[in-house]
Amino acid sequence: MRKSDWSEFRKHGARPERIVWAVAEHEGQRSICPLGWKMNTSGSPLMMAISVAPQRFTHGLIEQSGEVVLAWPGENLAEATLLCGTHSGRDMDKFKEAGLTPASGEHVSAPLVEECVANLECRVVGRLTTGDHSVFACEILAVWLHDQPTRLCLSIDRSSGYDTLLDRDGRLFGAVKR
Amino acid sequence: MRKSDWSEFRKHGARPERIVWAVAEHEGQRSICPLGWKMNTSGSPLMMAISVAPQRFTHGLIEQSGEVVLAWPGENLAEATLLCGTHSGRDMDKFKEAGLTPASGEHVSAPLVEECVANLECRVVGRLTTGDHSVFACEILAVWLHDQPTRLCLSIDRSSGYDTLLDRDGRLFGAVKR
Repeated sequence: MRKSDWSEFRKHGARPERIVWAVAEHEGQRSICPLGWKMNTSGSPLMMAISVAPQRFTHGLIEQSGEVVLAWPGENLAEATLLCGTHSGRDMDKFKEAGLTPASGEHVSAPLVEECVANLECRVVGRLTTGDHSVFACEILAVWLHDQPTRLCLSIDRSSGYDTLLDRDGRLFGAVKR
Repeated sequence: MRKSDWSEFRKHGARPERIVWAVAEHEGQRSICPLGWKMNTSGSPLMMAISVAPQRFTHGLIEQSGEVVLAWPGENLAEATLLCGTHSGRDMDKFKEAGLTPASGEHVSAPLVEECVANLECRVVGRLTTGDHSVFACEILAVWLHDQPTRLCLSIDRSSGYDTLLDRDGRLFGAVKR
């Protein structure tokens, strides 16, 4: 064992990471923010926690509406993930630009994403500032599943057990090989 | 898209999940608590967040010491992960029972685990109650790496892209196939 650093750790201990989209809406504005930083955080009630940087447009929408949809992109949404992760919802409607279909949930105003593997309707029930991010604790009110779910879109490393979905500008997305 | 539930979601949207061990020590007592519920939560300062149930022995040790080591098990530690995840540190010394070697860090009293792929020395800098768990925000003070890191131990589903490391009592651990 030897002293190392974060960037070397990331080569060995930080992949694969599933990606989730935080989808939020407030007063007619909506956005999609792809995140790797999420975790389950309660079994009863069902809750997930997400980390979002305050400068993200989606951060404000979540904070102001108190709601978020957690949408899980499948293998066909790597390009959409890159587009949503490298642009701001201040400048574009990401649903339109990425060719995504908004759908209505039953509990929140934020849209579901028709093309995603799964969508979780969530209410924000807690918040903690952590360094340069906010943790939002999200109670899961409803679960929606795609009729034909694909494999999930993962943030991956360069090992050989994945089908590469996208490899551009240092961003590497894939799905576990079947 | 159709209404579903959490257990069906888990078949499509909840794997693979990397496993991390929360290792804590207080007043001569120590324990190891395997977790799937963890995320990065800050880039500067570097921080991770973990979710731990209050009834876990390790929860008390983290709370009382204000420290934790996040140790990342590799493919050779699936059995140790199962053992540590199905017993309480109240009843055994998990290092001894699992044949693990404690090592000293530089910033915290909690032991590193010599056999793990990586060890992160952490100080607890925030806490949030989320349903039936606590979120601990952990600032990363030092990173240690194994001299010969293996693939990570993952919680997996039954798809074919993994080498199965352990399959017992509904618990399925694996590593992405090379």
